[in-house]
Amino acid sequence: MILSDIICLRGENIKMGKFTNGKFKEIIIGKPFPSSWDLHERLDKVRALAVFASDPISSNAYATEAIMSVLIVLGSAALPITLPLGLAVAGLVFLVVFSYIQTILHYPGGGGAYIVAKDNLGRTASLFAAAALLTDYILTVSVSVSAGVRAVTSAFPEVFPLRIEIALLAIMLITWVNLRGVRESGTVFAIPTYAFVVGVWMVLMLGLARTFGWFGAAPLIVETHKVAPTTSLAGFAYVWLLLRAFSGGCTALTGIEAISDGVQAFKPPEAKNAAKTMLAMGLIAMSLFIGITYLATHLHLVPEEAESILSQLARQITGGNWLYYWVQFFTAAILFLAANTGYQDFPRLSYFLAQDNFLPRWMRNRGDRLVFSGGILVLAAVSSLMVIVFQANEIAMLPLYALGVMLGFTLSQSGMFRLMGRIARLKPGESERTHVTEIHYERSARWKRLLAGIGATITFIVFLILTSTKFLEGAWIVALIIPLLVYMFHSISLHYERVARVLSVDGLTAHDLTPVADVVIVPIGDIHRGTLRALAYARRISRNVRAICIISSPEMKVRVMRRWKRFAPITRRMKLIPIEYDYRDILTPVVEYIEQVNNVEFPDQLTTVVIPAFLPIYKIGEVLHNQDAARLRTLLRPNKDIVIIEVPIHFDSKI
Amino acid sequence: MILSDIICLRGENIKMGKFTNGKFKEIIIGKPFPSSWDLHERLDKVRALAVFASDPISSNAYATEAIMSVLIVLGSAALPITLPLGLAVAGLVFLVVFSYIQTILHYPGGGGAYIVAKDNLGRTASLFAAAALLTDYILTVSVSVSAGVRAVTSAFPEVFPLRIEIALLAIMLITWVNLRGVRESGTVFAIPTYAFVVGVWMVLMLGLARTFGWFGAAPLIVETHKVAPTTSLAGFAYVWLLLRAFSGGCTALTGIEAISDGVQAFKPPEAKNAAKTMLAMGLIAMSLFIGITYLATHLHLVPEEAESILSQLARQITGGNWLYYWVQFFTAAILFLAANTGYQDFPRLSYFLAQDNFLPRWMRNRGDRLVFSGGILVLAAVSSLMVIVFQANEIAMLPLYALGVMLGFTLSQSGMFRLMGRIARLKPGESERTHVTEIHYERSARWKRLLAGIGATITFIVFLILTSTKFLEGAWIVALIIPLLVYMFHSISLHYERVARVLSVDGLTAHDLTPVADVVIVPIGDIHRGTLRALAYARRISRNVRAICIISSPEMKVRVMRRWKRFAPITRRMKLIPIEYDYRDILTPVVEYIEQVNNVEFPDQLTTVVIPAFLPIYKIGEVLHNQDAARLRTLLRPNKDIVIIEVPIHFDSKI
Repeated sequence: MILSDIICLRGENIKMGKFTNGKFKEIIIGKPFPSSWDLHERLDKVRALAVFASDPISSNAYATEAIMSVLIVLGSAALPITLPLGLAVAGLVFLVVFSYIQTILHYPGGGGAYIVAKDNLGRTASLFAAAALLTDYILTVSVSVSAGVRAVTSAFPEVFPLRIEIALLAIMLITWVNLRGVRESGTVFAIPTYAFVVGVWMVLMLGLARTFGWFGAAPLIVETHKVAPTTSLAGFAYVWLLLRAFSGGCTALTGIEAISDGVQAFKPPEAKNAAKTMLAMGLIAMSLFIGITYLATHLHLVPEEAESILSQLARQITGGNWLYYWVQFFTAAILFLAANTGYQDFPRLSYFLAQDNFLPRWMRNRGDRLVFSGGILVLAAVSSLMVIVFQANEIAMLPLYALGVMLGFTLSQSGMFRLMGRIARLKPGESERTHVTEIHYERSARWKRLLAGIGATITFIVFLILTSTKFLEGAWIVALIIPLLVYMFHSISLHYERVARVLSVDGLTAHDLTPVADVVIVPIGDIHRGTLRALAYARRISRNVRAICIISSPEMKVRVMRRWKRFAPITRRMKLIPIEYDYRDILTPVVEYIEQVNNVEFPDQLTTVVIPAFLPIYKIGEVLHNQDAARLRTLLRPNKDIVIIEVPIHFDSKI
Repeated sequence: MILSDIICLRGENIKMGKFTNGKFKEIIIGKPFPSSWDLHERLDKVRALAVFASDPISSNAYATEAIMSVLIVLGSAALPITLPLGLAVAGLVFLVVFSYIQTILHYPGGGGAYIVAKDNLGRTASLFAAAALLTDYILTVSVSVSAGVRAVTSAFPEVFPLRIEIALLAIMLITWVNLRGVRESGTVFAIPTYAFVVGVWMVLMLGLARTFGWFGAAPLIVETHKVAPTTSLAGFAYVWLLLRAFSGGCTALTGIEAISDGVQAFKPPEAKNAAKTMLAMGLIAMSLFIGITYLATHLHLVPEEAESILSQLARQITGGNWLYYWVQFFTAAILFLAANTGYQDFPRLSYFLAQDNFLPRWMRNRGDRLVFSGGILVLAAVSSLMVIVFQANEIAMLPLYALGVMLGFTLSQSGMFRLMGRIARLKPGESERTHVTEIHYERSARWKRLLAGIGATITFIVFLILTSTKFLEGAWIVALIIPLLVYMFHSISLHYERVARVLSVDGLTAHDLTPVADVVIVPIGDIHRGTLRALAYARRISRNVRAICIISSPEMKVRVMRRWKRFAPITRRMKLIPIEYDYRDILTPVVEYIEQVNNVEFPDQLTTVVIPAFLPIYKIGEVLHNQDAARLRTLLRPNKDIVIIEVPIHFDSKI
């Protein structure tokens, strides 16, 4: 009542409140947020670190091990090489972090590698970067959830047969929390992330204290059973092995790009906060990685099938007290949570792609809680599919992983290399607009350019090594999928371009409108309240109403004609066209007739069809009716000049 | 062109030919038959026997064994009792066949137990009969296909893991042949049925010849290792065991009712041909059953897990020559084909029920090939489900079976008992109409009544024995399903009654029609060719057009207002109503607004909504659009007085 007063009587410029939403949906997802609440749903730095860093931080749980498991081929005497290789990886982490901080500062709108490549390397490169990263975010979710489930099934082997179900349940849970909002997921996921970092830090501190005898800590007993190299690799083979070990360690880099993609999730000033968080993340990740690598080599740990390096390390240093269990528990937790990084970045990157018409437009839309619900649901679906296909076995998925990350790094740093080149050409005080952003003179542009160039080169080499060593193990799948995705992006973009051309109003005048033919066709099966209502409506809008009725027997014809005459007050001035038809697919002649009228009698005009639609109250009732109305709609749809009018009659309708 | 000349210019009473049908469908199912071909698709007696008798004839492959496997509890010395019990069963077969011949002659429209019960015992009894028989036809299909698959997997044990797939494939094949037409399936399935009968007859002849030394045949060597009864059962326990053995043998009765259901499948004179076929079927079935039972007891055969009685019999008599393999092969074939009897009767019975509004009306409709396609597909789906649930294990399904058959026999014979009572009261020359049929004086009515009464009593006793002995093994499922089906029939019938009331035109005058409000609402998201086309159409049918546009940002408002003004030649005399809305579910305020107009501004009138619908060419294109038009339709559907007009714009439309 009140509403109608506002809307219908004043009739313009009404501000509407929020009336209804599915109660059920509201219980699950929470009350809808208004669009203007955007800022309220932004992340502070503490939450942002937890949300975006769970993936890169969790990768330290296994990066050291990845180096060692390659070196062990040379025998355990070769393991000390882990330390210099680890330092080299840490150096690369530094380079990449630095490069992404530059990216964040220069592209405060977010979008990471995709936007950088788009702005500096062109469309195709940017689409490759996007495809690589989307693939990787999906794998982040399926790999980390599967790894988390492995931690659970190691503890409780009896649930192993249920691992796929557990993994899918975990994905559902993470999806649910993410659908409730960015800030909400940040709050939920902060505790385990920080608990993991603090736990490992304590182990490392204790380890260093016991190594160097600080605070009078009991010295560590170091066992050394050095085994001489089993094969003496020389020359190229040796270098190749070191490169492979180094590439393995580069797993520590995964997830570093996460923040650069989601700058707009931060509270303002977005870029500044994101850059600071990036730095904090880089420092935390490097401290964990170097600490673990140093102590692991110092303690002469050897990678084992049954126990991870981090677990060995924590057990030897703590002697297996509560701290050990703390680290173990939160390692499992953070493995699960690394998935959340995928949930942050996949929908955001999809948003950027959808903005540029490379993905379906609905992926731009925010849901009730201002998150990109479409992207979240697509990610949940595809990563669930991966979990099912790979039977929740993350070992089998790992060769697919990291490839995309490295490709993304390479493209993003190449882009930054170019951008810095442009900036370096600016004179002090000058500024310039690129396609996406504005650049100003910077003193250290040349240096930054050099670092980006080195970073790009190294990550490209790592990319090549990973591709060549893991190609047959499964990396070929990704090598196939990425170009296919790029092709898909192109096709989607082409589609939207064509749609835009069709809907374009350039040079449109009133004369271009298709005229409306003065004819209305009403297909009827009998004369009853429903069809009479439709006929009366048709009569209102045209003086040329034709009721067509498919006649399957002489008795039917007699009955229809008799009833038609009986309702002469309603049916007079309308024409009844009985069509005798000796088959049962009665919609075929109906469609034929309508198309004839549309194409031959009134070509290039809009022909109107009124369909009397009986609508049962319950969905289940639809089974009891033959759905001819719905099927007729579907059959008439391909005709571009046929307007369909559905006149409903319900169970409890008056006529 | 030619068509349009006929239709659009003459404009009435056109006889249309067959124009189009899906090419693919035509290849699979065959060219559609005109409705007038009905007679052409009827069955001659030879085909009809093959179609309807495959189930009752195939049951002779295991009926004797069913008696023996109960008696063996008493030790093999008790097995000779099989013969008198078998003769008793044969006597019951005779009674039931006789009763059904009466049914056919008195109810030439077909419909079997359902129609007989409906006419003589009332609605509830008829629905119980129908539910029992429908359940049984489903089980006929799943049991016989599973039994056929068992014959295949016995021969090729390596395909055992694929048994469910093979069974489903077999169901698909039988479904396919049946969809191609009644006559077609009769032709395909005739050979195996007759080959089985002839094969078993030859074995029986040879067996009798060798037993009685006819034509100088080598006498059979009869081994006798009689084992004394393991337990000496006395009194009631002994009688109970005999009754159970007799009930087991009654499996020979399954399928006998088939012909009575499908009288209308016969060429005219339908009833006479059906009765003759029924008699032939009864004689064939009894000859097989008595022959097998006699020789099996004469040869002192003992039921074994590994080899069926029929196989033992054939092997001993033929010595394992080609005739043995003939019988074995066609036993497997006829087991499969028994399913076809279900395919004949389930759709026909469904048709009768749908005629009386107890099943969805579309089950009345004949498909392209004049068969009841709906019923055939439902049967295929449900019996496939049974095969999956029971893992194609017919042994597990058998306890569910036969129960329904016996209930059907009991009700049908009770009905005939009543009918014959009515006939018996007529005087010579008198005749009378029942609800369904016409009855005349018959001299032997009293005798027929007595036989029907005996038959009903015995089948009811067998029904009780089967229910009590097999209840826990699975018969409870059927005991649960049958009342549920009856409840469903009632609900469906209630639904159609209500629909008929709603659509009824009793006492309807032109004044009862809901008036059409002079208002058209056009929800638009932007001003483009699609929405302009919709607006222009709306303008044609009303002087009160309101374009409503959900405004999500100030920029959007400015842009929409500017474009609205730009197209003033089209949009003038229409009203633009911008609705500011701060949430993303933009359809909510649209629906709110429309419902307000419909309920408050124009109550009890028809409100018209024009939806501009962009239709992509390919189905896949729908993923790329947000389907707001389709969702809006769904949301508006519950409103009984809202008329929805869809103005389409296609990829290649002019405006």
